[in-house]
Amino acid sequence: MATSNGSFANAAAGVVGTRGKPIKCKAAVAWAPGEPLVIEEVEVAPPERLEVRVKVLFTSICHTDLSAWKGENELHRKFPRILGHEAAGVVESVGEGVDGLTPGDHIVPIFTGECGECVYCESDKTNLCRTYRVDPLKGTMLSDNGTRFSVVDKSGLRQPVYHFLNTSTFTEYTVLDAACAVKVNQKAPLEKMYLLSCGISTGVGAAWNTANVSAGSTVAVFGLGAVGLAVVEGARLRGAARIIGVDINPKKFTKGKEMGVTDCIDSKTCDKPVHEVIGEMTNGGADYSFECTGFNDVLREAFVSTHDGWGLTVVLGIHATPEMMPLHPMELFDGRRITGCVFGDFKGKSQLPDLVDKCINGEVNINFDAFITHKMPFSDINKAFQLLEEGKSLRCLLSL
Amino acid sequence: MATSNGSFANAAAGVVGTRGKPIKCKAAVAWAPGEPLVIEEVEVAPPERLEVRVKVLFTSICHTDLSAWKGENELHRKFPRILGHEAAGVVESVGEGVDGLTPGDHIVPIFTGECGECVYCESDKTNLCRTYRVDPLKGTMLSDNGTRFSVVDKSGLRQPVYHFLNTSTFTEYTVLDAACAVKVNQKAPLEKMYLLSCGISTGVGAAWNTANVSAGSTVAVFGLGAVGLAVVEGARLRGAARIIGVDINPKKFTKGKEMGVTDCIDSKTCDKPVHEVIGEMTNGGADYSFECTGFNDVLREAFVSTHDGWGLTVVLGIHATPEMMPLHPMELFDGRRITGCVFGDFKGKSQLPDLVDKCINGEVNINFDAFITHKMPFSDINKAFQLLEEGKSLRCLLSL
Ligand SMILES: [Zn+2]
Ligand SMILES: [Zn+2]
Ligand SMILES: [Zn+2]
Ligand SMILES: [Zn+2]
Repeated sequence: MATSNGSFANAAAGVVGTRGKPIKCKAAVAWAPGEPLVIEEVEVAPPERLEVRVKVLFTSICHTDLSAWKGENELHRKFPRILGHEAAGVVESVGEGVDGLTPGDHIVPIFTGECGECVYCESDKTNLCRTYRVDPLKGTMLSDNGTRFSVVDKSGLRQPVYHFLNTSTFTEYTVLDAACAVKVNQKAPLEKMYLLSCGISTGVGAAWNTANVSAGSTVAVFGLGAVGLAVVEGARLRGAARIIGVDINPKKFTKGKEMGVTDCIDSKTCDKPVHEVIGEMTNGGADYSFECTGFNDVLREAFVSTHDGWGLTVVLGIHATPEMMPLHPMELFDGRRITGCVFGDFKGKSQLPDLVDKCINGEVNINFDAFITHKMPFSDINKAFQLLEEGKSLRCLLSL
Repeated sequence: MATSNGSFANAAAGVVGTRGKPIKCKAAVAWAPGEPLVIEEVEVAPPERLEVRVKVLFTSICHTDLSAWKGENELHRKFPRILGHEAAGVVESVGEGVDGLTPGDHIVPIFTGECGECVYCESDKTNLCRTYRVDPLKGTMLSDNGTRFSVVDKSGLRQPVYHFLNTSTFTEYTVLDAACAVKVNQKAPLEKMYLLSCGISTGVGAAWNTANVSAGSTVAVFGLGAVGLAVVEGARLRGAARIIGVDINPKKFTKGKEMGVTDCIDSKTCDKPVHEVIGEMTNGGADYSFECTGFNDVLREAFVSTHDGWGLTVVLGIHATPEMMPLHPMELFDGRRITGCVFGDFKGKSQLPDLVDKCINGEVNINFDAFITHKMPFSDINKAFQLLEEGKSLRCLLSL
């Protein structure tokens, strides 16, 4: 991969002197469910203990932002709010007690942090952290249960703006827990690395860490959005012999094939259940399947599409309805397994810096560019939301 | 372990000369659902190609026999039938093409066979065999879809008697696929080794092979019948620090404690859900849980009793109702996993002989005796059924 920065190395230089003071900057504020974001002048407080303030350089929109913006889950509605969780930027200043991060460092935010000290962080079986795991109900910072953002509303009152997913990246400056900021090699191009914040890490990691896809194996991916394609990328890099892409939208197959999908199944036009098609195609089923849609009937198809005896299904889709999994306990006796994964089972702070290094030195060849279908200035963020909602984009790179 | 046979070494000697001819002998025939078994004179045909005829010396009753006897699942009702799948015996004669088994060999039947040649047998991820896995609908032999047993019914007509679970051991002689007969060391006491046919292998293997219980870990076992106690035994031998036994019958706790259960939970008298009790007891949950009851609400408790991030639930109970698993797909994101296992994930023919050797030389100290709560002559088999049904026995050793 060609490196292309250097220009960022001093990106924080312009704000020397802001340390310890509030910063006024532009942010895209979500005021109410489904209403267009409004670019507002917000005030970003200095980082508190164990926090860092970051100048965001690149960000993009993922389905989780879309879902939170629409307020699909009432419990998670918190407005006004700054959404966004896929980004890259430069540390502007650090709060008390922060180790390993200093102003000027290049970072990628992670929504599932790593404190490095809890029983989870010390276990090699999980990347969940006791303190900084995803909590969709959380909209404030840990230290004081307050927000670092504020904005003046229509009535002229200054009010707090909620945080989102430990990240909140639709803003020129944000405040993160240091546990949620991964320092990456200064040589790495941040306009690509930002994809490690969510989509690519989730999909590639699901193939590498969760499923441990082996060379020569057969993989079925249900749903060819950004996460599904990142699974395809991970499977391709592992040398999977066959990567079957399943979607209801045949337009997704063009990109899918470019990225390594070997067989496409349009589940809407199939004359039999997808698992039967895959069973015949693969002489008994896929070795691995990945559910990237969030639908329970797809989850079932993904499960029974794997080979009995050893098939593994990894659930990545967000299942928003209260329905239980449509799987019978006795089906477990056929030797098929199912598991979930968050952030591709990567321990962000421990493992991503090494992955970034390998991307730079060519040891790992993740095709970042393939995911970036559009590029726009940050001010066009509402257009980018629309493109994603209409299924027309994978990732739209927003530059701040 | 003290060896105590030698007397069996020539057990087949008495039937020299029977090779290639039918054998008339006693068998306990199930004529109809729930009716007492009848000791009948049956005729046992010689083994066909890839089959062996075995003189059964010891057998006992497991819940699967009870369930088939009652005809609990209409689809699986086949009468008259010879039930029984936990046994040990001596090869009387072998059919054409049988490798590695000769008359006089000591064997333990396995209900999930191992052909050694199919894609499953060649995989190190499963012990299911394409040809000889459990098929509850099967009541005949593979080669000719016929039975090797026949009996004269009340009207004087000779009629075929169905086989059961690839084994049918409630008879002085049975015919097995060679793939379902494990040759064991002649020095091993068959009156103990017969327990490897089902209960002990299933439970111990679930702890060793399926869960890979580690030293110092915390284990919760739901249901302290023979399989649950075999899980306890497996966990104890692996050095689990804490083994929590859960049952609705507090009488089970005496035996449980003798065998290594460190904490007992009577789920009927708990004032809060069992998973909360276990969560508090273990500071977050068990590392492993084992569901040995076949009830869906217990399955859910077992699942949520494990520690998030890395908990693993192994399902061993037979879930006879059509209800799906009461687990939500998003619960998989908490890092808990669930899996089933058949026969403790042991590949019977490949792995049991080595286990038997280790039991003889003292390398592995499975407490076989603890499982045998009663001993009777084979003719008292109906009494033994009753003891098991009333929950009064673990295993009743029936000697033929
Ligand atoms: Zn995302
Ligand atoms: Zn932690
Ligand atoms: Zn059994
Ligand atoms: Zn096989």
